[in-house]
Amino acid sequence: MTLPRRLLAEFVGTALLLAAVVGSGIMGVMLAAGNAGVALLANAAATAGVLYVLIVVLGPVSGAHFNPAVTLVAWLRRQLRASEALAYVLVQVLAAIGGVLLAHAMFDLPLLQPGTHARTGAAQWLSEGVAAFGLLLTILLGSRRRPSAVPALVACYIFAAYWFTASTSFANPAVTLARSLTQTFAGIRPGDVAGFVAAQLLGALVAVPVAALLAPRAPLAGDR
Amino acid sequence: MTLPRRLLAEFVGTALLLAAVVGSGIMGVMLAAGNAGVALLANAAATAGVLYVLIVVLGPVSGAHFNPAVTLVAWLRRQLRASEALAYVLVQVLAAIGGVLLAHAMFDLPLLQPGTHARTGAAQWLSEGVAAFGLLLTILLGSRRRPSAVPALVACYIFAAYWFTASTSFANPAVTLARSLTQTFAGIRPGDVAGFVAAQLLGALVAVPVAALLAPRAPLAGDR
Amino acid sequence: MTLPRRLLAEFVGTALLLAAVVGSGIMGVMLAAGNAGVALLANAAATAGVLYVLIVVLGPVSGAHFNPAVTLVAWLRRQLRASEALAYVLVQVLAAIGGVLLAHAMFDLPLLQPGTHARTGAAQWLSEGVAAFGLLLTILLGSRRRPSAVPALVACYIFAAYWFTASTSFANPAVTLARSLTQTFAGIRPGDVAGFVAAQLLGALVAVPVAALLAPRAPLAGDR
Amino acid sequence: MTLPRRLLAEFVGTALLLAAVVGSGIMGVMLAAGNAGVALLANAAATAGVLYVLIVVLGPVSGAHFNPAVTLVAWLRRQLRASEALAYVLVQVLAAIGGVLLAHAMFDLPLLQPGTHARTGAAQWLSEGVAAFGLLLTILLGSRRRPSAVPALVACYIFAAYWFTASTSFANPAVTLARSLTQTFAGIRPGDVAGFVAAQLLGALVAVPVAALLAPRAPLAGDR
Repeated sequence: MTLPRRLLAEFVGTALLLAAVVGSGIMGVMLAAGNAGVALLANAAATAGVLYVLIVVLGPVSGAHFNPAVTLVAWLRRQLRASEALAYVLVQVLAAIGGVLLAHAMFDLPLLQPGTHARTGAAQWLSEGVAAFGLLLTILLGSRRRPSAVPALVACYIFAAYWFTASTSFANPAVTLARSLTQTFAGIRPGDVAGFVAAQLLGALVAVPVAALLAPRAPLAGDR
Repeated sequence: MTLPRRLLAEFVGTALLLAAVVGSGIMGVMLAAGNAGVALLANAAATAGVLYVLIVVLGPVSGAHFNPAVTLVAWLRRQLRASEALAYVLVQVLAAIGGVLLAHAMFDLPLLQPGTHARTGAAQWLSEGVAAFGLLLTILLGSRRRPSAVPALVACYIFAAYWFTASTSFANPAVTLARSLTQTFAGIRPGDVAGFVAAQLLGALVAVPVAALLAPRAPLAGDR
Repeated sequence: MTLPRRLLAEFVGTALLLAAVVGSGIMGVMLAAGNAGVALLANAAATAGVLYVLIVVLGPVSGAHFNPAVTLVAWLRRQLRASEALAYVLVQVLAAIGGVLLAHAMFDLPLLQPGTHARTGAAQWLSEGVAAFGLLLTILLGSRRRPSAVPALVACYIFAAYWFTASTSFANPAVTLARSLTQTFAGIRPGDVAGFVAAQLLGALVAVPVAALLAPRAPLAGDR
Repeated sequence: MTLPRRLLAEFVGTALLLAAVVGSGIMGVMLAAGNAGVALLANAAATAGVLYVLIVVLGPVSGAHFNPAVTLVAWLRRQLRASEALAYVLVQVLAAIGGVLLAHAMFDLPLLQPGTHARTGAAQWLSEGVAAFGLLLTILLGSRRRPSAVPALVACYIFAAYWFTASTSFANPAVTLARSLTQTFAGIRPGDVAGFVAAQLLGALVAVPVAALLAPRAPLAGDR
C-alpha cells in the first residue's frame, strides 16, 4: 500500500469514527428522556458497531489505527517509520475534527462549540490510563493470538470500557482533542485534554512490556 | 441462479426486512413508556439481527441487495444487466410495501396510513447521504476484504447509523418509499421521500470512487 | 449418537432455554421500573445468548431442535423417524415445563401458576405464523448456506422476532405450552395455547416449500 | 508456557474482569436514573464484552480460567497439577480483590467498603448452582464441539445468566469473595459469600458427569 492510500484510510476511518461517537451521543441524549444510561448504551453500541466495520474494511489498508496512541506503539515496534507515524497522527487529528463537524452538521448544530464537560482529576486520569492500557493489550495480544478477531476484540473492549471506566474511555488522543470541540454528550473541556492525553499515552506504553511478557515473540511455535 | 429465483429472494428478504423495521418500531414505542431511546435501541437491534440473517441466507441467491441504491451500484459495476436491475428495483419496492402492510396486520393497525413524520431539510439530507455513503463503502470494501463478514458488517453498520445520523439512517430508496405508508415510529411524510431518495443515491454514488481508491482492483495480490 | 443421548441433549437444552426465557422475563420486570421496553430488551437478549450457546454445544448431539415445529419439519424431511420425532416432542414438552418450574424456583415464586396473559385473535396468530415461518426459513436456508452460522442465525432471528411480531414470537409449541404455566412476563393463558400452536405449525410448514424454491437441493454445485 | 507466565495471565485477566464487573455496575447505577434494568443491561453487556476479549487473548496462555470453580474442574480432569491449581486459585483471589480496588479508585470511591447487599436463601443458592452448572457445561461441551467459539460462548452465557438467575449469576468463588468488598451495585454481604461459593462448586461438579454423558471422550470420531 502506498502512503497516500494508507493516509486516506486513516482519514476516512477516523472521521467516520468520530461522526459516530459524537452523533450517537447527540441522538442518545435527544431520545433517552433524561436516562443517561440509555444514552450511553446507544453511544457505546454504535461506537462498537462502527469500530468493527472500520477495522475490518480499512485494517488491510492502513492498519486501522485511527488513534495516535496506537500509532506511537506501532512506531516503537518498528511497524512504521517516524515520518509515516507523524503523517498518520496529523491525519488522525484532522479527520477527528472533521468527524465532529460532520456530526454537528448532521444534527443541525453550531459547527464549532468548545467543550464544557469537565473531565479532570486523578480518578479520571487513572480511568484513561486503564482504558488505553487495556486497548493496547487487546490489540497487541489479539494480533498475536487471533488476528482475524481484532476488529471484534477492539469493538467489544471499547463497548465495555465505555462502561467500566469513570471517564467513559476516550483512550485516544485524537478523539480527545476533537471531542473538545463539542458541547454535546461526548464533549470535554479544552483545558482537560492534556491530562487525558498524558494518561492515555502512559497507559498505552505500559501495555507494551506486559504484552511482551504474556506473548513473547521468539518461542511462539512451542507456545501452546 | 435463475432470475425468478433471485427475484423471489429479493422479495422475501425485502418484505421481511420491512416487517422487522416497522414492526419493531411499533413494539418499541408500545413498550418503551415514552423513552424513545429504548424504542430506537430495540428498533436498531432488531433491524441488525434480521439483516444479518437475511444476508447470510439469501446473499448466495440474489446478492441480498434489498435496496435500489445497492442494485444501482451493482449495475454500474456491471454485476447485473439493466433489465435485471430494473426487475430487482421493482420487486424491492413491491416487497417493501408488502412488508409494511404485514407489520400493520401483525399489530392490528390500519393497513394503509400515509406517513406524517416530517423528515426534511439540509441536515436530514446530509444524514441520508452520509448513511448511504457509509453503507456502500461497507459493502464494497467488505466484499473485497472479508466477503464472509459482509452480513455482520452491514448489520453492525446499520445499527450504528440508526444512532449516529439525525435521520436514523433509512439509506434505502425502497425502504423510504414504503415507510411513507406508515404513521408509526418508522414513518416518513410522502412529500419528504424524494429528498431522502436523492440524498441516498448521491451518497451511494460518492462511495464508488472512494472505495476504488481504498481497494484498487488490479494490484490486490501484492496488496498486503 | 444413541437416541437416549440425543434425548438427554433435547431435555437439557429445552429446560435451560425455558429457564432463560421465563427467568429473564421475571428479572426484566423486577428491575425495569415499569419500562416494559427495557424488560423485553433484556428478555430478548438473554434468550438469544442462551440459544446461541445451546445450539453450538448441543447441536452436534441432537440437532438442537428444542422445538416440536422444528422436529416436525425434520421428520417431514426424513431426517429422523416418526418414533424418534415423537420421543423428541415428548421430551421437549416435559423439559419446557421443567424449565419453567426451575425459573419459578430460582425466583422464589409459586412453582405452578396457570398463565393469565391474554394472547389471542387474528393479529396474534398472524404474528406467530410469521414468527415460525421465519424461524424455519432461517434454519432450512442457514443449514444449506452456512451451517456453522446456524446458532448465531437462530439467536439473531429470535432476538429480532421478539420485537417485530405482536406476539413477541413464541414460535415453538413446547415453549407455548410451558409458558401457560407462568403468570410472569412471558406467560400466556392456557386457553390461548391451541391457537398459537396451530399458527406456529402452519407457519413452519409454509416455510418448507419456500426454502425449497430458494435453495433447491439438486443443482447446488453450480449454484453460485 | 511457564507457570509464572500463566499466573500473570490469570492475574491480569481476573483483575480486569473484576474491574469491569464492578466498574460497569457503578457507572450503570450512576447513569440509569433509578432504572436498575438499564444498569443491569450495561453491567451484563460490559461483562460479556470483556470476557470475550480476555478469553481470546489470554486463553492460549493460561486457559483463561479466572475462576476457582473452573480451575477445580480442570484439576479433576487432570489438566493441571494440584500445586498449579492452588497457585491459580490464590492468584485469582488476589487479582479479583485488586480489580475491585481498581474499580473503586477509577470512580473515586473508598477503596475498602465491606458489602451490604444481602444475597442469601435457598432460591439464591439454587440460582448460583444453576449458574455455575451452565457455565461449566458451556466450557466443557464448547471445548469439545467448537473450541474457537469458547470465548463467545462464555460471554453469551454469562450475559444471559445475569438475567435469568435470581442472583445475577456470580458463578465464580473468587469473584464472589472480591465482590464482598464493595457496597456498589455488584456487591454482596461478606456473610453471604460461603453459601454462594458452596452452591457454585456444587453446580460446577454436577456439570462434569452431565457433560461426559453428552460428549463421551472415546467414540468422538464416529460421533456425528
